[in-house]
Amino acid sequence: VASFGPLDLNPRSPTYGCITSTPKPGWSDVDLVRPIRQAFNVPIGFDTDVNAAALAEWRWGAAQGLQSFVYLTIGTGIGGGGLINGQRMHGLIHPEMGHLRIPHDLAGDPFPGACPFHGDCLEGLASGPAFIARWGQPAETLPDDHPAWRLEAQYLSLALVNIICTLSPQRLILGGGVMQRQRLFPLIQ
Amino acid sequence: VASFGPLDLNPRSPTYGCITSTPKPGWSDVDLVRPIRQAFNVPIGFDTDVNAAALAEWRWGAAQGLQSFVYLTIGTGIGGGGLINGQRMHGLIHPEMGHLRIPHDLAGDPFPGACPFHGDCLEGLASGPAFIARWGQPAETLPDDHPAWRLEAQYLSLALVNIICTLSPQRLILGGGVMQRQRLFPLIQ
Repeated sequence: VASFGPLDLNPRSPTYGCITSTPKPGWSDVDLVRPIRQAFNVPIGFDTDVNAAALAEWRWGAAQGLQSFVYLTIGTGIGGGGLINGQRMHGLIHPEMGHLRIPHDLAGDPFPGACPFHGDCLEGLASGPAFIARWGQPAETLPDDHPAWRLEAQYLSLALVNIICTLSPQRLILGGGVMQRQRLFPLIQ
Repeated sequence: VASFGPLDLNPRSPTYGCITSTPKPGWSDVDLVRPIRQAFNVPIGFDTDVNAAALAEWRWGAAQGLQSFVYLTIGTGIGGGGLINGQRMHGLIHPEMGHLRIPHDLAGDPFPGACPFHGDCLEGLASGPAFIARWGQPAETLPDDHPAWRLEAQYLSLALVNIICTLSPQRLILGGGVMQRQRLFPLIQ
């Protein structure tokens, strides 16, 4: 079972398997695991949507054979997951890499950011909704030579630098709707 | 054996046990493990200085019993280490948390940063040498009510937010010369 977060991933917690507090209406405290456990007599794994995507990359995709990698999805939101020493990063809760704080030059990009919690965190500056809020149109309608892409590459690069400085992963994998734009990869590199 | 980095920590590498490229004169490519292995017939562990401090916190100090924590030292340099799922973060190389990129409001703090590589990365803004370069005197000579401390707390907080977003550790532990100033802890909290 993979879901948007935040989630209670601690098997010893009484609310294991639940979404915790989310601004998404009607989803706070919803128990995702118990109904499925009651309906099916099978082992159940439970994690964030992005960790599930990361595990799929590890099992079938770009992270095969690696012990340490990060998968970052850039779309409606931004999220990150992956493995360190072959294990997922379940610490106190789970990573929330979308809300990394990065340098934001207001002179070059006066957009205040679209995150309802932090304004100009990574998600606030570089997610799909940030494209719409800043440029008045979605990312997929902007031409390859639009200045949006250089700015996007800059913010994603700063976030990747922070992930590298913290985890030193063997590989970074980028996915999600915004990354369908092939031009972004060489700009980030 | 614990040393400043960057280090080759890969036991399968021909240069395992060596410092790699460092701006510190005379230390690049120095082999730290081999001479000790040749002199003493004992098992030898090898890691960064900050990971050794983190392991000491885990064995005897503030991280006892934890599976997931980060230790950050703020002094002449800034470095981070710790455990995730009870294991150290040895990925491609090792963490370099001192060089995290964080928001820097040049209007409020026009100091360009003291890091010879990145300018205003975390170490460039918040290390001991950054105090001397920005204020003309070392941190330990500044009174508790000096504006330096609020600025320092702000930069360290932004770095800790990034570490939390990436790793979700159970605990953050702060050490090093600059953190001898007790006033910093409540400001960061």
